[in-house]
Formats: sequence, C-alpha cells, structure tokens
Amino acid sequence: MTFDLPRRLAAETLGTAMLVGTVVGSGIMADMLSDDVAVSLMGNTIPTGAILVVLITMLGPISGAHFNPAVTVAFTLRREISVAEAVPYIAAQIIGGILGSIVAHGMFGLDLIQTSQTIRTGPPQWFAEVVATFGLVGTILAGIKFRVEAVPMLVGLYITAAYWFTASTSFANPAVAIARSFTDTFAGIRPVDLPGFVTAELIGAVIATLFFGWLLQDTQKD
Amino acid sequence: MTFDLPRRLAAETLGTAMLVGTVVGSGIMADMLSDDVAVSLMGNTIPTGAILVVLITMLGPISGAHFNPAVTVAFTLRREISVAEAVPYIAAQIIGGILGSIVAHGMFGLDLIQTSQTIRTGPPQWFAEVVATFGLVGTILAGIKFRVEAVPMLVGLYITAAYWFTASTSFANPAVAIARSFTDTFAGIRPVDLPGFVTAELIGAVIATLFFGWLLQDTQKD
Amino acid sequence: MTFDLPRRLAAETLGTAMLVGTVVGSGIMADMLSDDVAVSLMGNTIPTGAILVVLITMLGPISGAHFNPAVTVAFTLRREISVAEAVPYIAAQIIGGILGSIVAHGMFGLDLIQTSQTIRTGPPQWFAEVVATFGLVGTILAGIKFRVEAVPMLVGLYITAAYWFTASTSFANPAVAIARSFTDTFAGIRPVDLPGFVTAELIGAVIATLFFGWLLQDTQKD
Amino acid sequence: MTFDLPRRLAAETLGTAMLVGTVVGSGIMADMLSDDVAVSLMGNTIPTGAILVVLITMLGPISGAHFNPAVTVAFTLRREISVAEAVPYIAAQIIGGILGSIVAHGMFGLDLIQTSQTIRTGPPQWFAEVVATFGLVGTILAGIKFRVEAVPMLVGLYITAAYWFTASTSFANPAVAIARSFTDTFAGIRPVDLPGFVTAELIGAVIATLFFGWLLQDTQKD
Repeated sequence: MTFDLPRRLAAETLGTAMLVGTVVGSGIMADMLSDDVAVSLMGNTIPTGAILVVLITMLGPISGAHFNPAVTVAFTLRREISVAEAVPYIAAQIIGGILGSIVAHGMFGLDLIQTSQTIRTGPPQWFAEVVATFGLVGTILAGIKFRVEAVPMLVGLYITAAYWFTASTSFANPAVAIARSFTDTFAGIRPVDLPGFVTAELIGAVIATLFFGWLLQDTQKD
Repeated sequence: MTFDLPRRLAAETLGTAMLVGTVVGSGIMADMLSDDVAVSLMGNTIPTGAILVVLITMLGPISGAHFNPAVTVAFTLRREISVAEAVPYIAAQIIGGILGSIVAHGMFGLDLIQTSQTIRTGPPQWFAEVVATFGLVGTILAGIKFRVEAVPMLVGLYITAAYWFTASTSFANPAVAIARSFTDTFAGIRPVDLPGFVTAELIGAVIATLFFGWLLQDTQKD
Repeated sequence: MTFDLPRRLAAETLGTAMLVGTVVGSGIMADMLSDDVAVSLMGNTIPTGAILVVLITMLGPISGAHFNPAVTVAFTLRREISVAEAVPYIAAQIIGGILGSIVAHGMFGLDLIQTSQTIRTGPPQWFAEVVATFGLVGTILAGIKFRVEAVPMLVGLYITAAYWFTASTSFANPAVAIARSFTDTFAGIRPVDLPGFVTAELIGAVIATLFFGWLLQDTQKD
Repeated sequence: MTFDLPRRLAAETLGTAMLVGTVVGSGIMADMLSDDVAVSLMGNTIPTGAILVVLITMLGPISGAHFNPAVTVAFTLRREISVAEAVPYIAAQIIGGILGSIVAHGMFGLDLIQTSQTIRTGPPQWFAEVVATFGLVGTILAGIKFRVEAVPMLVGLYITAAYWFTASTSFANPAVAIARSFTDTFAGIRPVDLPGFVTAELIGAVIATLFFGWLLQDTQKD
C-alpha cells in the first residue's frame, strides 16, 4: 500500500459518491425525459457502466476501488484486507453513497434529503441480487487473476449487462442500496426493503468467494 | 492446459449459463418495459455484447471460453481440441444454457420450465444463421491469430452487430438456440425450429473453418 | 507485405461485404422494428461502429483493411500503396460492397437486386460528406502515426459519431455509397445522387491527406 | 514538446471544432428525428463520447488535447503549461468551438450564424457544472498519473456519464459553452447564461486541482 489510510478512505468515499451520483442523477434525468421505461433504463445503464470504468481506473490504484461492502467482505474473507481496514472502508462507502444521493438531488434542484417509496422486494428480486452479486464478485476475482488492467472495463460491462438481466436492475452493492433508499426517484428502494437486498448481496458475495476460490486456484500461473 | 477437466467443464457450464441468463433475462426486461421493439432489441443487444466480453475474459484462460458447440466443432476440425474433449464440452454448454434459462425465469418470478412458441424458420433465417456463424467463427480465428488479447472484445462487438444485421437476430450458437427453446419470452425459439437453426449454424462454422484456414495461412508471422 | 495479392483482395472484398451487409441489414431491421427514426438510426449506428472494430482488427493485418476507395486514394497519394495495387483494391471494394447489399437482402427475404429511391443530394449533404471523409482519413492517418493498435477502435468510434453529426449520416466511402444505391431500404441512396457523394468524399480525402500531412510531420518521433 | 506552436494551436482549434461540430450536429440530428427527448439525448451522448476518444487519441500527442479552457487553467495552476502558452491555447479553443457550430449548421443547411434562446441558468445547474468539471479534471489528473494511455477512453466515458447525471447535461467546458451560445438548436445556451456556466466550470476546475493534488500526491510511484 503506497497511499495512507485517509487518502484511501477519501478515495472510497469519493468513488462511491460519484457512483451513486451517477446512478441517481441519470435515473432522474432519464425518467424525466422519456415515457418509455426501457429508454429510461438505457439512459440509466450507459452512464453507470461508463462511470464505473472511469472511477475504478482513477481510484483503484489508491484504495482498490471497492465502492461496495460486498466486495470488501469478499476481500476480507480472502484475507486480502484486514477486518480493521474493512470496517472504515465500509463506513466510507456508506457515507459516500448517501452524499452521492444528496449531490444528485442538489444538481436537479430537488429536496436534498428524501426517503424512497419504491417497492423492491420478494423472492425473485432477492434471488436476482444473489445472482448479480455472485457474478460481480466472480468478475472481479477472475479479472484480477487473469487480466488485472481490464478490471475497470470488466466491472463496467458486467453492471451494464446486469441492469437488464435481473428483475431488480442489479444493485449488487449494499452501500449503493442504502444510498438509493435516500432518493424518491427512478433509482430508489424503500428503506424497509433494504434488509432483503443487503442480505441477498452478501450471500452472493460469499458464494462467489467460495466458488471462484475453487475454480481459479488450479493453474500453473501461480 | 493448466486447468483440469472438471474446472474446464465448470467454466463452460457457468459461462454458457451466464450468457443465456443475460440473453433471456434482458429480453424479458426489455420486452416488459417498452412497446418499441427496436428499443427492446437494443436492451437485449447491449447486455449480451457486454457480458460476452466479461465472460470470455474471465473464463477464457480456464476453458477457452467456447460456450458454443459451433466454436467447439471448428476447433475440433482444426485439431486444436480432441473429439474426446469436444463431447463433454458440448454437453456442458447445452446443460449450462438450459440452466441459464431457468435462472433467468427464477429472477423474474416466471415458471422455471417453459417451451417457446416463437416461430423462427424459413430459408432467409437459415441463410442468416449461416452468415452469422461464419462471421463469428471467422472473427475468433482471425482474432486468435492476429490479436489474441482482443478476442473477448471482438466477439462482444461482433454479436452486438449481428443481432441487428440478421433477420434471425443471430443466434449463431446451437447451445444457446437449444436453451432459448426453453423460454416462452422475447428471446425464444420453438423446439421444432431448432434443427434448421442448428444445421445452419454448423454449416456456417464449417465454411468459416475452411475459408479462414485458407485466408489466414499465408503469413510470415508463422 | 506478407500476404499475396489474392488473399489481400479477398480480405478487401469480404470486409467491404460484411461492412455493407451490416449497414444495410441493421438498417432494414431497425427501420422495421421502430417508428422513431432516431431509435432506428441508433440501431443502425451501434452495429456499424461495432463491426468496423471487428473487421479492421481481423483483416487489417492481411490487406490494411481499407474497405474504402477514399482511404485507398489517400494511401496512394502518400505513395504507401502503388497505383497498380490501388486499382484492384478499389474494384474489390466495390464488388464486395454490392455483394454485401445482396447478402443483406437474402437474409431478410427481400428481392436480391434493388435500386434505391432515397433522395440524398444538395450542397449541405455534399459539404457533410467532405467533412465526414476529411475526419475519417485524418483519424486513420493520425491513428497510424500515434497509436496504430488503436486504429480499429478509432475508426469504429469515429463512424459512430459521424452517423449523427452529419446531415448525410456520413457515408464517407464511395464503395459503400455505390453499394447502398443497390438497396431500396433505410440505408439507400439514389444512383443519380452518387456522383455528388463520391466527388465530395474524394475531395474530403484529398484535403485530409494534405492537411494531416502538414499537421503530423513535425515530430521527433520520426 | 516535439510539435511547434502553430501545429499545437492548429490541433487545439481543429479538435475543439470537431468536438463542437459533433455536439451541435448530433443534437440537431437527434432532435429532428425523435419526439422522445431521452432518445435524442442518447443520440447526442453516444457521438460526443465517441468523438472525444478519437480526438484525444489523434491530437493528444500534438497539443495535449485540452480542447477546454478549464483544463488549460488546471494545467496552468499545476505549472505544467506556462501562462504565455495558455492564452493562445484558450483563444484557439474558443475560435475552434465557434467554427464547429458554424460547420454543423452548414452540414444541416441552417443559418450559419445563430444565437441560442435556450435558458440554462439557476443554482442547481451552476452546482451541476461545478460537479461536472470537478469530475472531468479529476478524471484527467488521475488518468495521467495512473494510466496515461487510457485518458482518451476515460474522458469519453466520463462525459458519456456526465451528460446524464447533471441537470445541465454537463457542458464542463467554457469554450464549448461559448460555442453552444452560437446555435439555436438542441445543444444551445443563451449568451446571457454563459457567465454563470463559465464561472461554475472554472470553480470546479480549481477545486479539482487542489483536491486531486492532495489525493494523488502520496504514492511511491513518484
């Protein structure tokens, strides 16, 4: 590690804030401009995928660019980050995410603090979040092993796909889920629906850590 | 080969499942959200192209990332994979594809096992599948020869284009075609229409193997 | 040159055919599926940009991947290709382009040989073709000088942009223009309008050759 | 520096002209073809992001590819470019931008010189411009530090996202803002609204220079 902890936490906070600012802001813009929900979702997807490539490239060398407690948990399970570091990382991600929602509201002249009314619950959506987070963590672990310089692009493209192949539009990120409960716009989720999403995401991350631990281990590259 | 056969088959199964999960899942989502079929097709295309880049990058070093019996047949004809390996590869692709349809249905709360009613047949569509698979196999063979690290991106971009330039939306993959007969949603194909598609795809793969074998051989790079 | 002339001409023919097949085929598909012309144009743009990246990567090492008489003329002016080679190159491009239109019609079950009725003429469109071809040739010349491995992506992205910033949707290619006069679908152009487009494209190519010859020459990299 | 000042200024002029030509031209095209404003914005976004990747790759080695007074100011504050050079750079950007609007109008057969009537003002939009320019300058500074060859793609992707996450569609560029006051089309901005936008953009650039100066300094790579 060549960056001190304050800078690493600043990178996690800034990155999660810009990610959520993009998710929430582009959702507001796209929803405002179109009556076709698929067009709105495309206007939400393309910016999200694009900003992920940018943020992971620019902040990855500082903090690892987790921006996601599920990813931090996976790296903790793999002992690539200590619990003592994981806790402030997750706190920074949650704080950054909420700041991102507030900034997005400010840019569109909306009430800064909001509470979502959007219902996102039920077994199919929970299953979708397990699948989406499994795939995200697998993408990261395999990407790091086989082509580390491609990880920003892989994550951006993975989320671009996952917005559409899941009924939940693939949150796949507990910090982003919490932040999205703070906006009553296109990207929102009711606070009461958070436990289901967060639990599913953590389950997906754990399964991916185990499965890809097995899948990726047996190579002479090591 | 540095990965043992069980891991390689797991990679083929997982990759084909995630590919079909994306094709079927994004088709359901896009069709549900829009009345404009071109918008729906774009919502089906972008995720499919994106996930192909991800899957081939993350699983290619393990199994070669065929995810497609037409590709496995082409490599078998070129004696780059033995028949003894090609058979379980193709089985893994077919099983993975069907699992992908089932998982997609689970994520959207639909009946897990379905049978498609969508008619896709006739000489123009068969001709389109020959052309689409010819181009796909040619892309892979030329990509491997000239710039192997670009193959994931080339395949993703090729399929992005082929979804639109063919009347059939370019299945170009017998395992995906079989899997798509298991869903009665946007991406489906009637089981009775499978023989025409699969035959056309294998013809395209064979023609590409012969033609690109000639086109690519005469270079001093070798 | 490590590939003999027949293979190079085959690459130019195949590449131009696949390019036109994509332009015409995706135009038919997009126009058929949507009433929103901007959606149709996006369904025409994304496949065209994507296939250009694929074709230039896979065939560039064989023939240089011109697929475009305006590009061949620019390289001839720069004495990077002889007139004796340029003539069969251009013939291969024109033949390949027309084959591409025929194949696209075959895949959609339309009359194989058609004549376009679409009016594309007038000084603004001619000016647009000068600008579009100037930019295309400049992109190629600067790309080759500064980052040759990025040329396929640069050309794909340039055409993606140029479809939208020109009133003519940026043909920028005499062989493609001729081929598009053979289709009475979304991408067509009346045969009588060809001289204006082709002349404008060649003017743009010549201006770009002169201007970028000056702009790019003065560097110590040489 | 291996290119003399005239060539560098030519690159800044050409690059800004092609950028504005794309922004304004694709705005005209997209607005003309669709009644769905989100579709039009996508038809404006994709070309803009694409051309940025092209222009920065092809002209970056000549002039640094600023195309943006806010970027030139940031580099001046960092003493990476002298004030004596920054002044003609900014002049070239403004002249190039206005030329770009004129060329776009010429390609669509519109009055060459226009004055925008589009109201873009108010604290939320100014705040959005601060955020957008902060992110743009941060992307460039971090990109140069960590992966300089990726900067063209990073800027293209950043602007693709920023078009959607800001209420202002992210001008983030005083020269482009001035040029856009010269078009009464989709991309326009009233001349009277320029001071608010330009001021906000410069504030964002200064904050980014300070913040990323701190964030990026502490690494052993230096």
